[in-house]
Amino acid sequence: MRQSKLFSKTLKEAPKDEKSVSAKLLIRAGFIDKVSSGLYNFLPLGYRVHKKIEDIIREEMNNIDAQEVYLIALHPKEFWEKTNRWGIKEIFKLKSQSDKEYALSWTHEEIITPLAKKVISSYRDLPKYVYQIQVKMRDELRPKSGILRTKEFIMKDLYSFHYSKSDLDNYYERVKNAYFKIFERCGVLPFTYLTLASGGTFSDYSHEFQTICSAGEDTIHICSECDFAINKEVKSEFNRCPVCGNNNFVKKNAIEVGNIFKLGIKYSKAFNLTFKDENGKNKTVIMGCYGIGLGRLMGAIVETNNDENGIIWPEEVAPYAVHLIKLEDKEAIEKISDKIYRDFKKNNIEVLYDDRTDKSPGEKFAEADLIGIPYRVVVSKRTLSKGCVEVKRRDEDKAELVKIDSIVSKFRF
Amino acid sequence: MRQSKLFSKTLKEAPKDEKSVSAKLLIRAGFIDKVSSGLYNFLPLGYRVHKKIEDIIREEMNNIDAQEVYLIALHPKEFWEKTNRWGIKEIFKLKSQSDKEYALSWTHEEIITPLAKKVISSYRDLPKYVYQIQVKMRDELRPKSGILRTKEFIMKDLYSFHYSKSDLDNYYERVKNAYFKIFERCGVLPFTYLTLASGGTFSDYSHEFQTICSAGEDTIHICSECDFAINKEVKSEFNRCPVCGNNNFVKKNAIEVGNIFKLGIKYSKAFNLTFKDENGKNKTVIMGCYGIGLGRLMGAIVETNNDENGIIWPEEVAPYAVHLIKLEDKEAIEKISDKIYRDFKKNNIEVLYDDRTDKSPGEKFAEADLIGIPYRVVVSKRTLSKGCVEVKRRDEDKAELVKIDSIVSKFRF
Repeated sequence: MRQSKLFSKTLKEAPKDEKSVSAKLLIRAGFIDKVSSGLYNFLPLGYRVHKKIEDIIREEMNNIDAQEVYLIALHPKEFWEKTNRWGIKEIFKLKSQSDKEYALSWTHEEIITPLAKKVISSYRDLPKYVYQIQVKMRDELRPKSGILRTKEFIMKDLYSFHYSKSDLDNYYERVKNAYFKIFERCGVLPFTYLTLASGGTFSDYSHEFQTICSAGEDTIHICSECDFAINKEVKSEFNRCPVCGNNNFVKKNAIEVGNIFKLGIKYSKAFNLTFKDENGKNKTVIMGCYGIGLGRLMGAIVETNNDENGIIWPEEVAPYAVHLIKLEDKEAIEKISDKIYRDFKKNNIEVLYDDRTDKSPGEKFAEADLIGIPYRVVVSKRTLSKGCVEVKRRDEDKAELVKIDSIVSKFRF
Repeated sequence: MRQSKLFSKTLKEAPKDEKSVSAKLLIRAGFIDKVSSGLYNFLPLGYRVHKKIEDIIREEMNNIDAQEVYLIALHPKEFWEKTNRWGIKEIFKLKSQSDKEYALSWTHEEIITPLAKKVISSYRDLPKYVYQIQVKMRDELRPKSGILRTKEFIMKDLYSFHYSKSDLDNYYERVKNAYFKIFERCGVLPFTYLTLASGGTFSDYSHEFQTICSAGEDTIHICSECDFAINKEVKSEFNRCPVCGNNNFVKKNAIEVGNIFKLGIKYSKAFNLTFKDENGKNKTVIMGCYGIGLGRLMGAIVETNNDENGIIWPEEVAPYAVHLIKLEDKEAIEKISDKIYRDFKKNNIEVLYDDRTDKSPGEKFAEADLIGIPYRVVVSKRTLSKGCVEVKRRDEDKAELVKIDSIVSKFRF
């Protein structure tokens, strides 16, 4: 992508109404755009990151045998009455021209459970795992910290259906492992803790994945020995770490980037989702649900991967692999830069090419740091005189000179 | 995907409340699921098709230099008041807990235009092309024909911004060509006609892409000479075909699968979207918009690609390339079938594997025809005795025997 054609522009100043680091950086760098309180558009750079996160999650969900579906966002009221949840204040509600009432997709248990009822009738139909990556809307009174808490966001929600508690337990562990992989690939794992949180009627506790950051709204207590964490809401129930027995904890602010939850029979009971077991006996299906908010995860990545100059994208979620910068407007430099750009594209190396003629070298470097693409490749008079270009990692200070002939092979893995 | 694990099941009977061929087939074959009037979930097979259509559209949009964004679906009322469109009856409206009013995304001109205003100020910033693939919600009084007309659907909407009418005209032609490619790749082009339709204040006419089918709600008049068509709504203005001068037309029912529209300055004026030209003079940006409804296109594909036994998916949008059927439950047959399944997967040949043990050969064949995957590969005692499997195209009657050793290379292109 030629930066001269890019839809978005960077901003000199951080918007005054944003407090969190991630919101300030993402808006200044042209990744997102605030429309109204809790409502953000994703601009081309931002949507590229969002889609990379989506692809990572999709791959890891497929790896644990989950099948992708797409459930409606507009939910007839009667589905929410069945579970006695129509009264939840954070559910957006509306009426059609013909006076039919709907809820907007606050979550999707009310849709997936009756759907599962259409395809599950025997133990032979179990287990089943389905997920979607779809929009959720929540009437938040206090949306906060940019895309960390919004009124509208894309969520991955996985639902599992089981014939026994032990089958649910097994799958729960598989999902937990998949989540660790997702957070590792997204670059937040070093800051992310598996955290015991409150459960429901079926299970005493659930697990959250909490990423340490100052903008986090949750408080977690991290065991100083084994890295297991406990959410503040249930901390009083534990004097010692339930994993290692240690009684020393460190308190931190964190943001919940994912959660896994044993629903048990709460929703299957409401919709009478049953199956016939091997003996022909009717039993209630046991369910689990597992969520990740994509925008929030993107925000958490930025909260934990930045410096005073801007974002530092982890490689797998970066909008582009390389930021190619034509430093001066001389013809020889443009010719070489254009050729490197074409060669990168030919070799499927994702590249943002700063081909702009109205920016100074200082402005170009500052914008590159702000946008935070992992590698910067600079073409200038100085480097060309040595037959080289300059390559620098965003997270390192030292640059290296690379021969022009071998620049493509440096990035083709 | 092993069919024994597939989330969806086929249905013996078409649902009684569905009239259109596409809705009947898509529901029976387990591609979509009706939740309520005008609201359909996409099941794993259906969502695979939907995503393939999405990928085709994305590729063709990127080919005409459009950049992908993601605009919010929840629109603050004030944006719709600016264009005097808040009163449109088909817009779903809602109020938050704190009494703020919102429209649901009926379309996105009200969001993209103020966003464009933030990045366009000079002729140097033009042209710009952005698109999204996002949910639209419309309060349809009479949703009809399954996914051909729904209350909620995914739409690709592209918006272009220009400094001159001729620049818009040029891009309009590029989009028109991209649309022809999309409809060709989706297998509806032989049934799809470029159709003159009513315009707006800026342009007398717009163009629709109309696909002939009995479930179509529109009526178009097709020139018997040159295949150009005219929508009934503007037909009275033309005695002769504006392309070739012929005066003989054939009247057909059709469904609008896409439209391209020169908006002119309607929305840029409402939001005061201007730019400084080469002489420093303020001018109003000229806009175009271009839509494709993905669910409707999927419905139109089925309307035009089926026979009395089921769907016949065009190859590029088929949920899988091959339907592998293990015809009997003998161990030798299972061993070979399993091996072919693994080999297909290893070679990235997308395969649905009917490994079920509780279905007769007749049931398996009938379901394969209903689901409509382009190639059927059958492993049976009869073919194995010749060291072969049987390969049949869904749209042909004749099957051929292919040596087991060379079955993979038949599908690896």
